Amino acid sequence: MSFMGKTFQKNIKALSKKDSFLYETLFHNANGYIGVRGTLEEGVPADYNTMRGTYINGFYDIVDMKQAENLCNFIEKKETMLNIADTQTVYLSVNGESFNMAQGTIVKCKRTLDMDRGFTKRDVVWKSPKGDKVEISIKRMTSFEELSLFTIEYKVTALSGNVSLMFSSKHIPEVSNYSDPTDPRLAAESPKFISVVDDGISDGISYALCETSRSKLKCCSVVGHEITDKKARFCTAKDEDGAMTCDVMSDLKKGESVTLIKYSIFTDSLRCDEPLTAAKEKMKKVLGNGLDYYYKKQAEYLENFWGGSMLEIHNDPKMNEAVNFNMYELLCSSAKDSFGNIAAKGLSGEGYEGHYFWDSEMFVIPYFVLTDPYLAKMLISYRYRTLDKARENAKLLGHKRGALFPWRTITGVECSGYFPSGTAQYHIVGDIAYAIVNYYLTTGDLDFIKECGAEILIETARLWLDVGNYVNDTFRINDVSGPDEYTCMVNNNYYTNRVAKYNLIWAVKFFEKLEELNMAKELSSKLKFSKNELDEMKEAAEMMYFPKFGKDGVIPQDDSFFDKPVWNLKATPKDKFPLLLNYHPLHLYRYQVCKQADTVMAFFLFPDAVEKNTQKKSFEYYEKITTHDSSLSKCAFSIVASKLGMQDKAYKYFGNSAEFDIRDLHDNTSYGIHTANMGGSFMAVVYGFAGLSINEKGISIAPFVPDKWSGYSFKIRFMGSRIRIDVTKEEVSVVLEEGEAFAMKIYGKKTKITKKKTVVKV
Amino acid sequence: MSFMGKTFQKNIKALSKKDSFLYETLFHNANGYIGVRGTLEEGVPADYNTMRGTYINGFYDIVDMKQAENLCNFIEKKETMLNIADTQTVYLSVNGESFNMAQGTIVKCKRTLDMDRGFTKRDVVWKSPKGDKVEISIKRMTSFEELSLFTIEYKVTALSGNVSLMFSSKHIPEVSNYSDPTDPRLAAESPKFISVVDDGISDGISYALCETSRSKLKCCSVVGHEITDKKARFCTAKDEDGAMTCDVMSDLKKGESVTLIKYSIFTDSLRCDEPLTAAKEKMKKVLGNGLDYYYKKQAEYLENFWGGSMLEIHNDPKMNEAVNFNMYELLCSSAKDSFGNIAAKGLSGEGYEGHYFWDSEMFVIPYFVLTDPYLAKMLISYRYRTLDKARENAKLLGHKRGALFPWRTITGVECSGYFPSGTAQYHIVGDIAYAIVNYYLTTGDLDFIKECGAEILIETARLWLDVGNYVNDTFRINDVSGPDEYTCMVNNNYYTNRVAKYNLIWAVKFFEKLEELNMAKELSSKLKFSKNELDEMKEAAEMMYFPKFGKDGVIPQDDSFFDKPVWNLKATPKDKFPLLLNYHPLHLYRYQVCKQADTVMAFFLFPDAVEKNTQKKSFEYYEKITTHDSSLSKCAFSIVASKLGMQDKAYKYFGNSAEFDIRDLHDNTSYGIHTANMGGSFMAVVYGFAGLSINEKGISIAPFVPDKWSGYSFKIRFMGSRIRIDVTKEEVSVVLEEGEAFAMKIYGKKTKITKKKTVVKV
Repeated sequence: MSFMGKTFQKNIKALSKKDSFLYETLFHNANGYIGVRGTLEEGVPADYNTMRGTYINGFYDIVDMKQAENLCNFIEKKETMLNIADTQTVYLSVNGESFNMAQGTIVKCKRTLDMDRGFTKRDVVWKSPKGDKVEISIKRMTSFEELSLFTIEYKVTALSGNVSLMFSSKHIPEVSNYSDPTDPRLAAESPKFISVVDDGISDGISYALCETSRSKLKCCSVVGHEITDKKARFCTAKDEDGAMTCDVMSDLKKGESVTLIKYSIFTDSLRCDEPLTAAKEKMKKVLGNGLDYYYKKQAEYLENFWGGSMLEIHNDPKMNEAVNFNMYELLCSSAKDSFGNIAAKGLSGEGYEGHYFWDSEMFVIPYFVLTDPYLAKMLISYRYRTLDKARENAKLLGHKRGALFPWRTITGVECSGYFPSGTAQYHIVGDIAYAIVNYYLTTGDLDFIKECGAEILIETARLWLDVGNYVNDTFRINDVSGPDEYTCMVNNNYYTNRVAKYNLIWAVKFFEKLEELNMAKELSSKLKFSKNELDEMKEAAEMMYFPKFGKDGVIPQDDSFFDKPVWNLKATPKDKFPLLLNYHPLHLYRYQVCKQADTVMAFFLFPDAVEKNTQKKSFEYYEKITTHDSSLSKCAFSIVASKLGMQDKAYKYFGNSAEFDIRDLHDNTSYGIHTANMGGSFMAVVYGFAGLSINEKGISIAPFVPDKWSGYSFKIRFMGSRIRIDVTKEEVSVVLEEGEAFAMKIYGKKTKITKKKTVVKV
Repeated sequence: MSFMGKTFQKNIKALSKKDSFLYETLFHNANGYIGVRGTLEEGVPADYNTMRGTYINGFYDIVDMKQAENLCNFIEKKETMLNIADTQTVYLSVNGESFNMAQGTIVKCKRTLDMDRGFTKRDVVWKSPKGDKVEISIKRMTSFEELSLFTIEYKVTALSGNVSLMFSSKHIPEVSNYSDPTDPRLAAESPKFISVVDDGISDGISYALCETSRSKLKCCSVVGHEITDKKARFCTAKDEDGAMTCDVMSDLKKGESVTLIKYSIFTDSLRCDEPLTAAKEKMKKVLGNGLDYYYKKQAEYLENFWGGSMLEIHNDPKMNEAVNFNMYELLCSSAKDSFGNIAAKGLSGEGYEGHYFWDSEMFVIPYFVLTDPYLAKMLISYRYRTLDKARENAKLLGHKRGALFPWRTITGVECSGYFPSGTAQYHIVGDIAYAIVNYYLTTGDLDFIKECGAEILIETARLWLDVGNYVNDTFRINDVSGPDEYTCMVNNNYYTNRVAKYNLIWAVKFFEKLEELNMAKELSSKLKFSKNELDEMKEAAEMMYFPKFGKDGVIPQDDSFFDKPVWNLKATPKDKFPLLLNYHPLHLYRYQVCKQADTVMAFFLFPDAVEKNTQKKSFEYYEKITTHDSSLSKCAFSIVASKLGMQDKAYKYFGNSAEFDIRDLHDNTSYGIHTANMGGSFMAVVYGFAGLSINEKGISIAPFVPDKWSGYSFKIRFMGSRIRIDVTKEEVSVVLEEGEAFAMKIYGKKTKITKKKTVVKV
């Protein structure tokens, strides 16, 4: 393993079952629109686990989700991300012997993820069972320039005497999703969702237009080939099983090379009316431009990306690699339009069925707000586009007004089958509101607030009014679940009530701000929003109730949290983790035990709500009873530990978070990356170590450097400007790289950030 | 409609869709072992709803119950009561025209349930489309003498000229269950569960041995015929579809009659090793005895039953009819061995899939304890027989000790798919304990306590120790659901904590009692029961916490009940009831609204736990927020209203409860009777109006007579003796009919009950 530039590599001695499956995730290609798992072109032996997937962000079908007992308005169908046409299959035969990592001899093999140039690569020297030796080099890319494009550049060099090669490159339109009935986190069903409605071959280019079984969406794949060997023979034909195969034969002398380039174009009917026509046109354009053009554009795109998203850790190459990997994966996972969003596992696997959760707003959008506000805006726009469905969802839950965003979804419809740790997590609407406010406070983009943000804030604030009720002049929120899924259906979850209060306050602020600027009329008439309701919001925010401090001044997670016994984590055998796979939820609910940061998460979002001392006591209390069985937990603990001055703890939690996927710490990255945690690890440095804070008073930092590091550097955007911050143990320097100068507090002292470097001694 | 003797009748002018379905329930035959819906022998038109069912108590198959999201130890299969062989089909053709209630002319038709003689009857005068006129009289019986026996006596009299009759009597072994995917209270699947493994015809007697698909149980049906017409021609043969048909031809002159008698015997492998052999032997015996023998035995059995279960209401024939109907149905529904129990809908329909609930212990067993203690003991023995499964169930829920009886079950395995209003109703273990104590206090049967009762009490008491925990020296029970299914997953449900306390107290009492008598050794060594655990139980009982009284001294249903807004029942449109079919549970949980008696139910069980004044205030409070969407509610309200001196209310609630099924008040009796409510209506008179109380201090009554009545009489058993109590507005008289004299308090005054009538002025 090595890391040079932004290149992540794995040397492979022999194909292993575990690594083979894991590398499908780690070396997947994605651009936010399409994602292709890093499966081997030639496949794996039959007893290997493999998820041979290609996905389109937001492209889905509908699956029945039968309820064991179907109570009123329970969810009975869900959306699921689809595996679409397999265009990554290329068989190679060398003098009649099939190339395959499990036979012959792997002389050497290296897999590479090049994050500067945006491709993955597999380099293999292979000796066939009969003794022919070839060097194989396969480069794969999902293009940021042309989001529909996936390419495979398959180069073979003869290292021994004459070899006759035959490439057999497949285009398989009808594929199934991955399934595992034993894991609740994966789909249990494995039906075939798509079927071909039109396919064919013309001029050696194969195309297939497919339709989904229930959502009736269409997607199209078009595949074309080029080969460097002018004498090579081509033959493209449709097989009996519906796959289209392009056979290419080429003869090499020792030392000679040949390269097959395979272009795949994917389109879908969510984003265009005529996906087949569009795909064919795109293919024509792509073939005209040629692969090198797209390599060049890819490198330029990433140069620009890293220019704005730079985070370098000095003196700790492993951590540096990890955070850069995470940032890169976030770019690859995130939709570039409002038709999709960021799935819990991005476009890297089918875990959580491609659903979008609060992960987007609380863990990923904050990263883009600081580094690429346009992408952040796209992601928030998705929520605006699905606001009507959230209004419908609120009605299904019995509310007379407001919008309840679904706990998990693709199109905006609730897809959670178990409401106590699904729909009951009402905090998601506060999370969305929080993300919008954060976007606004960082960008100043009032237009977006006027167009989308204020409406979402008002509708979600309305929901809180409808959920809550007054008791003794305090506003209570009963029977919801906070982020901690080991404690469900509680009253006055501290986190929830905090985000609800913030949501209410900012609904009012946004509306009054727009009113001041005479920009509120349209909105208030559209929403029939009255002064009366505005006052209701003000009052509920002001009267918001928070559970009473426990003994020793610790904040209880909810009203009755401290009435329960503390789970004995030390006495719990290791094989009983994660607890959710080993204990009935009803049992877990009866204990003080947390799957993840809940109250601690609130300290990150609302650092000024309670005294630091209370936060510290509470942090230490929750730390002892949190299992971090969720990947969303340690990053939050890290940030709050930083803010509370517990630097060693902050670093420990950060490390765990940063390396979560790249080192497969939870032994489940093979099913897909954990995008929320990836965003969290970025925040752990920027919000945590660097102490970034952005609120109505402005922007401030108060960095420290973890012991192990000599320093770190990063770039962020604020109000349209971009700055670079370099932190060492001795000093902090900040310089404006782009845009207008602005004021920033550094260690509490207001400083103007200009193109001339500001240096502050620690 | 009329009521003479104990005969319930309906005159039918024309077949109606609604009534036809309803009468299948009201006129069903059952004896606690088998139940046969009162469907028409000739069937109904295709567009009529019909549930053509024959059931065996406790006979089941296993059905998958997929969970939308399958968390740890969620229930994924359930047991379901099976519809078994259809032997009730008899087609009649009259001069070639099929008799059928929907064609020709119904000159008159009457359906009768004779509760003194234990049969149902249909009397029809029918004119065929061509004009032939016949009188048809069909009598059906499930025998109490021979529980395996179901008979149909089908008599036809020619009222017009010569008629040629042909009976075509079917024996259809392979049938399906009823299904309705739109109703959560019914099974959504309609698979065929049973298939024939052996069948045949010998000497005109058909038999079929069937096996279930997954439980691998066997059941057997054997059918034989007799006809009064010596010249009649018989022919029994197996049809292509697997049914066996006995065709009988007979010619009648005007005024002549012919009677076909059809005997069906049912056996099962739960209760005997060779069900086929057993069934054939039974058939031989039955044919030898003849139908009249069984009619005679049936009448004797019922004479004896009514002798012990007498309850007569003077001056209110409708109510008198209703309560006697209910008592009769309880006898028919209740298992006569410990292989079955009492399903929520008895053996009258497939609603709730034949599952047993707390209904048995809290509503039905109390009736049998007073009228037929042997049956009560059988029903409790069922729980003892399933105690090991309850221990297993406790482990599935994470408990280290104790037994958790399932919320709904056939064999003792949890079959509840939605745990918040299923498994979380831990009170069921306290209910079972309560029923055992009640049985003991009424019968003095210490042997049963030694054999079964004490073990159940100790194991359930252990469960409470494991569920609960101490907070500030009080013992709390968190995250359970009380009886009210509109408020789930709460802390310290008042009802639950009351039954838990009682359970703990009586586990200790029983153990100490047995110890005193030197009878506890075996038990304590079997259960590894230590002094230490005994002390734990004492302490938990003593320290049991109850939610703090609310404003105005009302007892809250649970810790946070009064923190929720009151549901506006007056503003809720009528078509929104029952609420569970119209509101998401999460919505319901957020309001003060009750499906059924919960805290009020606790006042019935524990009348001395809190002051009467508190009970009255609380009763009035809960009355306003209870929808009685459960059939278990109004009887409890009636009893408590009686005990609190609210006689008019008590009568109103009683009437509703008594007539629930016989008048189809909830428009759902067609799916089956509501056995719990039936027991409740008996208790509303005996525990309510008559003020019966049985506790450690002894037995007492303090009767009043509802305004509308002139009085009422009933018989109950106490400590092996049977007494008759007559109540009028002027006086109460009590006389010992059987057994030893004993002391009883009447209006607080201790009185010796002897064979000489005691008369007390009101």
